[in-house]
Amino acid sequence: MIQKLTEKIKKTHAPICVGLDPMLGYIPEHIKRAAYAEYGETLEGAAEAVWQYNRAIVDAVYDLIPSVKPQIAMYEQFGIPGLMVFKRTVDYCHKKGLLVIGDVKRGDIGSTSAAYAAGHLGRVTVGTKEYAVFDEDFATVNPYLGTDGVKPFIDVCRQEKKGIFVLVKTSNPSSGEFQDRVTDGRPLYEWVGEKVKEWGESHMGDTYSYVGAVVGATYPQMGKVLRKIMPKSFILVPGYGAQGGKGADLVHFFDEDGLGAIVNSSRGIIAAYKQEKYERFGEAHFADAARAAVEDMITDIDGALKAAN
Amino acid sequence: MIQKLTEKIKKTHAPICVGLDPMLGYIPEHIKRAAYAEYGETLEGAAEAVWQYNRAIVDAVYDLIPSVKPQIAMYEQFGIPGLMVFKRTVDYCHKKGLLVIGDVKRGDIGSTSAAYAAGHLGRVTVGTKEYAVFDEDFATVNPYLGTDGVKPFIDVCRQEKKGIFVLVKTSNPSSGEFQDRVTDGRPLYEWVGEKVKEWGESHMGDTYSYVGAVVGATYPQMGKVLRKIMPKSFILVPGYGAQGGKGADLVHFFDEDGLGAIVNSSRGIIAAYKQEKYERFGEAHFADAARAAVEDMITDIDGALKAAN
Repeated sequence: MIQKLTEKIKKTHAPICVGLDPMLGYIPEHIKRAAYAEYGETLEGAAEAVWQYNRAIVDAVYDLIPSVKPQIAMYEQFGIPGLMVFKRTVDYCHKKGLLVIGDVKRGDIGSTSAAYAAGHLGRVTVGTKEYAVFDEDFATVNPYLGTDGVKPFIDVCRQEKKGIFVLVKTSNPSSGEFQDRVTDGRPLYEWVGEKVKEWGESHMGDTYSYVGAVVGATYPQMGKVLRKIMPKSFILVPGYGAQGGKGADLVHFFDEDGLGAIVNSSRGIIAAYKQEKYERFGEAHFADAARAAVEDMITDIDGALKAAN
Repeated sequence: MIQKLTEKIKKTHAPICVGLDPMLGYIPEHIKRAAYAEYGETLEGAAEAVWQYNRAIVDAVYDLIPSVKPQIAMYEQFGIPGLMVFKRTVDYCHKKGLLVIGDVKRGDIGSTSAAYAAGHLGRVTVGTKEYAVFDEDFATVNPYLGTDGVKPFIDVCRQEKKGIFVLVKTSNPSSGEFQDRVTDGRPLYEWVGEKVKEWGESHMGDTYSYVGAVVGATYPQMGKVLRKIMPKSFILVPGYGAQGGKGADLVHFFDEDGLGAIVNSSRGIIAAYKQEKYERFGEAHFADAARAAVEDMITDIDGALKAAN
């Protein structure tokens, strides 16, 4: 899957993913109105609005990009109907040829991580049958519990040729509280980076390992250091746009050939129509605004990479 | 809710919770056979087996204990049918008067943590309506992202009078890899403990705060230190029994009045019938074996607390 991601990035010249984090506040009124008219102001109604919103955005941008990153919390909050739409979104994106990074940030003790890994990336066995359940291509994983919480995901990745992105340095303002604590002369995130490197070395695709890392766009200097620590790991970079990251800041997350990183934007794309820059599209044409925002993001990042190399 | 937990512990003399982590391998054959006969070897069949198993165990032990801790991974792995049974289990336990600790280990950047908090502990708004979705009483939270990943949970706890248990020192063998790293003279888990104390101080119930901690039974010396660091926090103690913790090791997780901690056992209770000690019950009477194991666990922990005080 990491090869497939690399190929798709080369083909689209777009090392980006669109974050499908559909908060109700982002969804245009006409979509919510139609969904509530059909299902009432219920969890089913909310889930239907999310689905119609997602589908329109995916239809508008799928040919420009290699991948999407649905944030499961935005679906899980609406319970069973929400999670049904999460699954429906994963399947629809696959049908459109997109790779799906499940932003699930799971991580637990060994046997429990094994259940998460089976459910999200692998297969579960029921009697004599096997099922791929949520069936994302990649998942994000929290490393706080150490190797035996991450290992079950890696085992499934090897079996299924899928991948994970381990949280190393997250994009949020307080990420430094624990992640930046210096131990043995280096901040914790570097030690997590070293582990990502170690876990990845024995689980290689052709060029990159199955074990990638999450490093926030909001911390470009740390990205530069981590790129060197984990030369064979793809870096998933959240925090572009709405959280403050810019293309020029991100060049050091990439290798010299412009690969090795994939930058996510969520709100900046899916709620682009709310920005002054794209307000000409109007709420009715929110999906066209998303497409324009994707095109601008590609130009920004591709331009920055060309200027740097 | 933390008051309710304290009262229930006083009433039952059982500072314990039963971990409802129903791996298919634990479920007796006759239950699986019946479920597969009705639904086939499908995700629905697996979920039905889990449900019948859970219900029988809850029926057998609910009068002895204050709380249960369903591990959501064991349900999530079976997709939508599995998560429907997670919800059904939460509701059933509530009906039986039990407090429910959702072992979800969620944690993300602020707006995303807010969605998890709303979905698991609080309410989500759809148009003019509000819904309590999964509606657990407590949830476990991963602190790797720092304060702004935890704060949204605390806000919901204050509103709903619910609680969280923050992962401080986990029970698994490799938990020390990052959690034990010494920074500024103290291991990381102590710094996380200090934050738990700080977060909790401004969010107090009558005696204990809404912000508790997870500290593994497998690390009793660290539990002793952490008890002192976080005097107002309830400690959820996993790792008893199957993972190696014993009652006598656990007294220092408690306050002198025998409160302030709640010890979880999962496999040791729900799959007790597989142990030599309880094999007299036989697979058919797995729920009676679970009840006997709960009684023994109460005796072990209550005895250790009496011996210590």
